[in-house]
Amino acid sequence: MDNEVHRIPASRLKDLCLQVFSRMGMTDEDGRLTAEVLLSADLRGIDSHGVARLGFYVNGMRNGVMLPRGEALVVTETPSTALIDAGGGMGVPVSVRAMRMAIEKARQVGMGWVNVRNSNHYGIAGYYAMMALEHDFIGISMTNSAVFVVPTFGRDSMLGTNPIALAAPALHERPFVLDMATSVVPFGKLETYNRLGKSLPPGWAIDENGNPTSDPATVIEHARAGSFRGGLAPLGGTGEENGGHKGYGLVLLVDILCGVLPGALYANLMYPKTEEGHPLPSGIGHTFAALRIDAIRPVDEFKASMDDLQRRLKDAPKAEGQDRIYIHGEKEFEEAERRMRDGIPLNPKVYTDLKKIASELDVPFD
Amino acid sequence: MDNEVHRIPASRLKDLCLQVFSRMGMTDEDGRLTAEVLLSADLRGIDSHGVARLGFYVNGMRNGVMLPRGEALVVTETPSTALIDAGGGMGVPVSVRAMRMAIEKARQVGMGWVNVRNSNHYGIAGYYAMMALEHDFIGISMTNSAVFVVPTFGRDSMLGTNPIALAAPALHERPFVLDMATSVVPFGKLETYNRLGKSLPPGWAIDENGNPTSDPATVIEHARAGSFRGGLAPLGGTGEENGGHKGYGLVLLVDILCGVLPGALYANLMYPKTEEGHPLPSGIGHTFAALRIDAIRPVDEFKASMDDLQRRLKDAPKAEGQDRIYIHGEKEFEEAERRMRDGIPLNPKVYTDLKKIASELDVPFD
Repeated sequence: MDNEVHRIPASRLKDLCLQVFSRMGMTDEDGRLTAEVLLSADLRGIDSHGVARLGFYVNGMRNGVMLPRGEALVVTETPSTALIDAGGGMGVPVSVRAMRMAIEKARQVGMGWVNVRNSNHYGIAGYYAMMALEHDFIGISMTNSAVFVVPTFGRDSMLGTNPIALAAPALHERPFVLDMATSVVPFGKLETYNRLGKSLPPGWAIDENGNPTSDPATVIEHARAGSFRGGLAPLGGTGEENGGHKGYGLVLLVDILCGVLPGALYANLMYPKTEEGHPLPSGIGHTFAALRIDAIRPVDEFKASMDDLQRRLKDAPKAEGQDRIYIHGEKEFEEAERRMRDGIPLNPKVYTDLKKIASELDVPFD
Repeated sequence: MDNEVHRIPASRLKDLCLQVFSRMGMTDEDGRLTAEVLLSADLRGIDSHGVARLGFYVNGMRNGVMLPRGEALVVTETPSTALIDAGGGMGVPVSVRAMRMAIEKARQVGMGWVNVRNSNHYGIAGYYAMMALEHDFIGISMTNSAVFVVPTFGRDSMLGTNPIALAAPALHERPFVLDMATSVVPFGKLETYNRLGKSLPPGWAIDENGNPTSDPATVIEHARAGSFRGGLAPLGGTGEENGGHKGYGLVLLVDILCGVLPGALYANLMYPKTEEGHPLPSGIGHTFAALRIDAIRPVDEFKASMDDLQRRLKDAPKAEGQDRIYIHGEKEFEEAERRMRDGIPLNPKVYTDLKKIASELDVPFD
């Protein structure tokens, strides 16, 4: 394995995804949507949710955990809400359609709210929230997800890292795009620290006895063994002193809206396994919402205020040693411009994995 | 001033509020709603938002900053959304009506979303979210609020402590009621530490140079002087290491939905003052939303899953030294039972303030 970082044009990686998804039996349209969401993560610098996940999706389809052609059905519907059963299919295509439905409902009655159940990993939450922007709507997206988070005062992982995303347009400034896990950090960050032999900052992780720990190795070991002992702290850290109970509350909020409400799996029921340890369908659920801005206030006025809000923050005095105050989404938009120009940097492991997938499926990639 | 904690029955404090609000010129109905929300905070143990605020409301009405009979008007409306201009009136009555409207819209089209602008302090966010519970709906409430929060990498207070509340019913278990400021702690907590001569835990506050500080005194001094130098960190603390940028994102999310969207004030425009330092109307805004659970899934199934979710968490293994994992709202429901039975404990300062208000307005209270 070489040690080089490979820079590959987004279009070439997208091509690879399209062909891989086609080989796995997805329709052209579903493959296109899924490739689009993966590449959107890679462009925005969210490497953990881009083509680095291609193997995860391929394995999911191979194991029968994700159906390449799952049949999504609308279960219930009102003028402003709907519930879709994803039929155990891939997470992205049903999510794009659910968000489109939320947007259409918002267009008709002001606000749209669509839940999805019986789904799978849907990529970056922010993608769906951002779908609302071209319509001058506010977009919201949430999902429950793999179990890594320990509740306040607990010792076992019981909940997902459950992200929340909200996007709102601006006029001359960039849109506001918040896309955040409700855990203090993603699990991948523990793996990075472990690889570098670094201690974790206080408040990130919890050991098998429920105590704060600075050692990523044992937490990772337990997770890999499929035990739920120890895990990540919610946003706000361990205990209540720095508001860990608030982060735990946000994790639960997402689990209630995405898991309990649509009748999806939730808490430590998600990502179940057979007694032999084989993965079963993840059973997760999602929430998509869209709000028509001009149902509340003229869009131009709203956007002008969004610009003003952003400029106030950017022009505010900086902390010593800092030269910039950021708006959420800003770093990612800038990264997308760079990566669109210079290509997507793939670390050697991801590059090797993609070569392997391509070769196994007899798809050209070099 | 005596040093005793006075325990007073909720009904007597409510009576006091009713008479005070009547003297200030509020209608009986508006006074009743406002007293109800204040006492609900006192019962639930959120002392900072109960009768301790009565003087703040009385002063607001005396200064002309809050109109006792502000005229609220529906500005825009769609089947699922509305915008109400509160006309500079008291925050509570318009908020109760806005939440009722959101609930009615949810009943009719599945989901309701109502914004309020040109309003004032509305008490505890959780009250409005909880109004949805008796209808078996999910309730959401948010507001922007007085400027105490420093954005990540900033040095000045630029944003409110902007709370988020969500309530969802359960079957045999208590409802889930999340009601959280998006700052790491409320400003009042700095005052408590200052009074006790204690140092602040790391990550709570930021000094006038934008550095983390453990000294509450100077932060409080700047706030009292009406300068915006230093302030509270968002949930996640100072900097980005523990996710302070996520908390900052949640603060902004609330400011966008409650301030920018309805055309209310936002960021450091809120709670403006004249050049001489006299307060002007706060100009804040709120968001209320209701979601009909049975638009998505049968209510009984939803509630049974809520019970199961709660029991899974409560029965999960505890951290060393802990004997309980809480669900949000649980502590407050238990406190409300105690206080309904034993009375509301008032510290000497609050008790003295109430006596003074009563005496000034010629209302019996002893």
